[in-house]
Amino acid sequence: MSKRLLQTLNGEKTDRPPFWFMRQAGRFLPEYREVRAGAGGFLDLVYNSELACEVTMQPIRRFGMDGAILFSDILVIPDGLGQEVGFLPNHGPKLTPVKNIQDIEALDLNRVVDHLQPVMETLRLLKNDLPDHVTLIGFAGAPWTVATYMVEGGGSKDHAITRKWALTDPEGFGKLMDLLVDATSLYLIEQVKAGAEALQLFDSWAGSLSEKAYHDWVINPAKRIFDNVRRVYPDIPLIGFPRGSGVLYKDFVLETGVQGVSLDYLLPAEWAARELQPHVAVQGNLDPLLLVAGGDAMMNEVKRIIDTFEGGRHIFNLGHGIVPETPPEHVEEVVNYIKGLA
Amino acid sequence: MSKRLLQTLNGEKTDRPPFWFMRQAGRFLPEYREVRAGAGGFLDLVYNSELACEVTMQPIRRFGMDGAILFSDILVIPDGLGQEVGFLPNHGPKLTPVKNIQDIEALDLNRVVDHLQPVMETLRLLKNDLPDHVTLIGFAGAPWTVATYMVEGGGSKDHAITRKWALTDPEGFGKLMDLLVDATSLYLIEQVKAGAEALQLFDSWAGSLSEKAYHDWVINPAKRIFDNVRRVYPDIPLIGFPRGSGVLYKDFVLETGVQGVSLDYLLPAEWAARELQPHVAVQGNLDPLLLVAGGDAMMNEVKRIIDTFEGGRHIFNLGHGIVPETPPEHVEEVVNYIKGLA
Repeated sequence: MSKRLLQTLNGEKTDRPPFWFMRQAGRFLPEYREVRAGAGGFLDLVYNSELACEVTMQPIRRFGMDGAILFSDILVIPDGLGQEVGFLPNHGPKLTPVKNIQDIEALDLNRVVDHLQPVMETLRLLKNDLPDHVTLIGFAGAPWTVATYMVEGGGSKDHAITRKWALTDPEGFGKLMDLLVDATSLYLIEQVKAGAEALQLFDSWAGSLSEKAYHDWVINPAKRIFDNVRRVYPDIPLIGFPRGSGVLYKDFVLETGVQGVSLDYLLPAEWAARELQPHVAVQGNLDPLLLVAGGDAMMNEVKRIIDTFEGGRHIFNLGHGIVPETPPEHVEEVVNYIKGLA
Repeated sequence: MSKRLLQTLNGEKTDRPPFWFMRQAGRFLPEYREVRAGAGGFLDLVYNSELACEVTMQPIRRFGMDGAILFSDILVIPDGLGQEVGFLPNHGPKLTPVKNIQDIEALDLNRVVDHLQPVMETLRLLKNDLPDHVTLIGFAGAPWTVATYMVEGGGSKDHAITRKWALTDPEGFGKLMDLLVDATSLYLIEQVKAGAEALQLFDSWAGSLSEKAYHDWVINPAKRIFDNVRRVYPDIPLIGFPRGSGVLYKDFVLETGVQGVSLDYLLPAEWAARELQPHVAVQGNLDPLLLVAGGDAMMNEVKRIIDTFEGGRHIFNLGHGIVPETPPEHVEEVVNYIKGLA
């Protein structure tokens, strides 16, 4: 059986758009909450290959998406590098901040691949369990976004400490970014070796930079990582998600040479159809809150997005991760509509 | 003496770009910190017309900007409507959240203009004190951004409660937006009556919406407010700042008919020069953190921005507010460079 998602990334037209939903393995599913409750800390779940495989499979069983995204977290990279990473219940991640060159030098690239072997085992289990038509998507956080968590010590409103470091000491900050480029490249290559059939690089905070810094800290590291991966696996399809890039989405697509680009929900679909779709498969971009709202507001927007991207390659998805209060019935309604297009 | 800033907004070319800096009356100036320390709460300073006039004048005296922006805050609108608004030291604003129709109905449009008379007195004092070449800029927060504070009860990372309300109950949320359109229109008209020579509408969180919601809750309210103001003062120049709009900056400019548009620092200057400047005066867009960094990184970017916008109307400014740790000498270096272009 052919895989619509891979076909689309490889430049072929399919009978209907393939679809998956960012954060589809997550708290909106009761079966996820049940596994999560018994798993200990969040990273315990990520590193428990059987359970991580199980929660990755849950939305596939329920909805039959065309893509299954590995259940993991972007902060496994700092964890793999030896930075202290914790997840406090209801408070998000907490890290011992990286503040200077000494803190960067205390991190250890050599432990990343060994430390992240449980993730590779998850991929191997998935490879075995997934239905034939489903594409297994590996992923990592992009260096800029991961760096904001590493430097701020967790989530932050405007990433001010990281932005200041990047602007006032580009050489020192560049060492952290170099390390992240290397670690992320090794990690993604290892994921392909373990069975990932496509890779997505998540840069959630790409939009917090100025134009020049965006080229230095979003496009450049993404390109270096993708080049490293392509040297080992020339045919692996690559998807970038530089969220909030606005006009700069086009530079990102043209300069990194990705096969797919994930669009945030602010980006006008018509603009993306005209400026991006001739070069790349576009993925997106329903506002996840419309999956909460449901009804006509949701379905009209689903149809508008699909119609707008009908002339080229399109992977239906959200513009950001699914939120916990999403009624699974709303997801099902969208899924049934898309399946009905075949 | 002619006013470069007004000339630029009115479509004329000037000998050099006019300049001012968002949040130029603020904590980076020792003379501001001194006034602030003796003024009580933040809103006490805003409503003390003599002191508000003094801090508005401080950067003009020191640097000779072409524009003086009224010292006030976007949250005077909810305060004027009767919502409880407080500013906790180092914690930002705190409001009793507006959660439903009943809370909206408890607000009172009729008290806005009376309650905000101290702001009008500030403008009258400024009108008297400002040097002839300086344009007096009034402002207000745009309904979407003000609504996020009113609904979340303060600053928030992703405005999730407000976004959910807007998407799931557009009719109810629309009542809050209608009220804000009316209050903001009255407030801005009153500012022009008191001496404001140009108006800027700040929509700091415009970029958190999806494409369709952006049209409903950013462009539409801005257009209604600007139309209301223009009905009374047809010639007042209007500046929009829909921060983070990306590609949608163009729709904003074309659909609202503003004379000026303020650009965030992510927006590529070359794109803005090509797509926006033929229609409007562009204002921006230096990353304020480069004013902290100083040196070549700062000056190269100042020159690049000015060179890129040289072919059309340009007001030099930042892409976001000046930050407290900015060394005033760095501001002076930029100012001297721009003045030297005349």
